[in-house]
Amino acid sequence: MQKVEVCLSPELIHLFDLKGKIVVVTDILRATSCMTTGLASGVAQIKPVATLEECRVLKGQGYFTAAERNGAKVEGFDIGNSPFSYMEEKFRGKNIATTTTNGTLAITKSTHADEIIIGSFLNLSTVAKYLINTGKDVVIHCAGWKGNYSLEDTLFAGALFEKLHNDFECGDDATNSALSIYSAAKNNLLETILGSSHAKRLKKHNIRKDIELCCTIDKYDVLPYLKDGVLIEK
Amino acid sequence: MQKVEVCLSPELIHLFDLKGKIVVVTDILRATSCMTTGLASGVAQIKPVATLEECRVLKGQGYFTAAERNGAKVEGFDIGNSPFSYMEEKFRGKNIATTTTNGTLAITKSTHADEIIIGSFLNLSTVAKYLINTGKDVVIHCAGWKGNYSLEDTLFAGALFEKLHNDFECGDDATNSALSIYSAAKNNLLETILGSSHAKRLKKHNIRKDIELCCTIDKYDVLPYLKDGVLIEK
Repeated sequence: MQKVEVCLSPELIHLFDLKGKIVVVTDILRATSCMTTGLASGVAQIKPVATLEECRVLKGQGYFTAAERNGAKVEGFDIGNSPFSYMEEKFRGKNIATTTTNGTLAITKSTHADEIIIGSFLNLSTVAKYLINTGKDVVIHCAGWKGNYSLEDTLFAGALFEKLHNDFECGDDATNSALSIYSAAKNNLLETILGSSHAKRLKKHNIRKDIELCCTIDKYDVLPYLKDGVLIEK
Repeated sequence: MQKVEVCLSPELIHLFDLKGKIVVVTDILRATSCMTTGLASGVAQIKPVATLEECRVLKGQGYFTAAERNGAKVEGFDIGNSPFSYMEEKFRGKNIATTTTNGTLAITKSTHADEIIIGSFLNLSTVAKYLINTGKDVVIHCAGWKGNYSLEDTLFAGALFEKLHNDFECGDDATNSALSIYSAAKNNLLETILGSSHAKRLKKHNIRKDIELCCTIDKYDVLPYLKDGVLIEK
């Protein structure tokens, strides 16, 4: 039977053996919600990079650029970290390089896995269907906030395990706990996430519409997949 | 208002500012349950040390010794990590040096806090009462399992926050999540903990009686308190 484990923060990922496994990276507010929205809206490729400098260099190489630090857009880049920006007409068929506080780090720390895919509430069922069909073990990697635990990413892990639990064995305590937290919250998902530390942190940036979008389940059926360092549609 | 935060693993404790705060270290299965039981049973002092070597040296200095690795007693020491061992008559008024896989590490990683106390279900209300009276902020430090998340320690964090939440502000997402997990489990605490990864790991050591004891709420009113590297009754 396939096995699911949940890594609650990039600071814990070294404790997981990723060899032969699929990692699902999730950063609900908002990096992986943006990536899902982007590819669903016709962006050709999204290249996640760790630093602002790498992102800036790619601007000169035909990429549009997206950069966020501490919840805010960084000056000098095309867009920040709002999923609505990724829907813009001008990005259709184009490439975007992106760097964010947490999400891109979780991707770069997962690269010894067999496969890396991107999960968000927006493509929840598509991710689950893909995982059930692969036959591989799964690690759900929560991006968290600056290395620490975050509620919204753990809720996604719980939602995903709820979809998988008939086909997968629960690999660790974090997986069961994520399911318990999601079960208690799922009928009030938006309100629960609006009460999270990160939503409070983002309040000054006036992004309630972003958060509502990020809490929408199965808006898209796209599966962002990392290939040669670039996210494309599987 | 005083604030509570929950650190889900010793691998995350560097992300917390412990200055001026009280850290409650918890390792339900079984280090902090043993420490609570020991002081409640008349042990004079318990000295937590990180390594087997340090523990061995103390044997020659008038200490009884307790040593556990991977759930089992280590050869050559007086006792392992069962709370029942700490009740033995011969330890009354004596000192015990102890080293365990996770619990003693969580203590040594907390030493830049203002105060360190030991929490377990066995002394839950005593710990809560002390914290409410101090006026200081609190970090509940879950010992986990080899650096990763563990259910039983998080359940304790939730139980403690349930007792504190009228007097304390919730400082982070982990605190709220711990409360949510505890609320779902508290009417079946023993069964829930018997289903945890660590209880399964310990199954071969035949310690069901230990686990039952460790899940007993408020059996003792003792408060183990770290002073000059040694746990004494406050």
